[in-house]
Amino acid sequence: MSTEMARFTRRIPAGEDRERLTCDECGFVAYENPKIVVGSVVVEQGRVLLCRRAIEPRRGFWTIPAGYMELGETVQEGALREAREEACAALALDGILAVYSIARIGQVQVMFRARLLHPEAEPAFAAGPESLEVRLFGWEEIPWAELAFPSVHWVLEAWRAVGDGPLGAPQGNPPADRRGVQPLAGA
Amino acid sequence: MSTEMARFTRRIPAGEDRERLTCDECGFVAYENPKIVVGSVVVEQGRVLLCRRAIEPRRGFWTIPAGYMELGETVQEGALREAREEACAALALDGILAVYSIARIGQVQVMFRARLLHPEAEPAFAAGPESLEVRLFGWEEIPWAELAFPSVHWVLEAWRAVGDGPLGAPQGNPPADRRGVQPLAGA
Repeated sequence: MSTEMARFTRRIPAGEDRERLTCDECGFVAYENPKIVVGSVVVEQGRVLLCRRAIEPRRGFWTIPAGYMELGETVQEGALREAREEACAALALDGILAVYSIARIGQVQVMFRARLLHPEAEPAFAAGPESLEVRLFGWEEIPWAELAFPSVHWVLEAWRAVGDGPLGAPQGNPPADRRGVQPLAGA
Repeated sequence: MSTEMARFTRRIPAGEDRERLTCDECGFVAYENPKIVVGSVVVEQGRVLLCRRAIEPRRGFWTIPAGYMELGETVQEGALREAREEACAALALDGILAVYSIARIGQVQVMFRARLLHPEAEPAFAAGPESLEVRLFGWEEIPWAELAFPSVHWVLEAWRAVGDGPLGAPQGNPPADRRGVQPLAGA
């Protein structure tokens, strides 16, 4: 595979205006596009559900249930799947709380506000294979210094701003990182 | 290239739960992900800006300025770039009006409501290389039978519902096509 990949080089195909990963032999263009992450701020009686990551990157750090959207699903289906996989939780989605662009790594993150569909179930959630631990945190209990990614911090603040109230237009990146180019301190 | 591509087959890699495009020789996984389309409903004095497509698919049909997001840009930057390229228009973005999933073709569409940044400029917009014609249409003038894609219809209805008022949570697919799986009639 490594020798095959070496036959692709970055050049500007005819009729385009920027470099593309192009096959040296036949000109096939392998388009590279931003990837979509879908996730949920899951709220149960004022507390938020966080998962401690069992996988790299940022193993041991806390995040909301979120991950790469798959082909063939909707953003809603992707967010529900990630919560099922990472937190063994069935959700009801309220709507889109925030849309972030992380230009540095080519990601768009679509974040929902959600509730547990069966909060009375025993258990209502549990650690999936990619989580070490899943817990509900009140605002004052959130382990801010142990969050996995900047956007987890952003989306918790976005939830704080809107609470249980009506969702407005989705929040975007904070002014301090409008393009999503700041690396995570200490990561 | 065609012989090289033939060395990839769809199978389930170790530790995963679904088929991936995998190199038969070394196991390299070429992840396939949904692509992001960014676009804008551009409103000027109650009229909406539409572009008649100069390229396939749907050459000759009308659409809003929209296209594939590129690596290294934000959703906002992508929407501004598309309006510049297709309609030679500088925009001010209000916020996200709608987020659609087109599962059939692996797309997520992030649609903004926007205004012309310099409506007094002469011209304030013009056909770019991918457009045959760019025009403002009042609601009653919209060429409904000649719209390029279902989501153009959806987003015009979404704009109609919200008008110039405050944007709420983004609208999603209409109930009749919640997953974005219906092909365009006649296309």
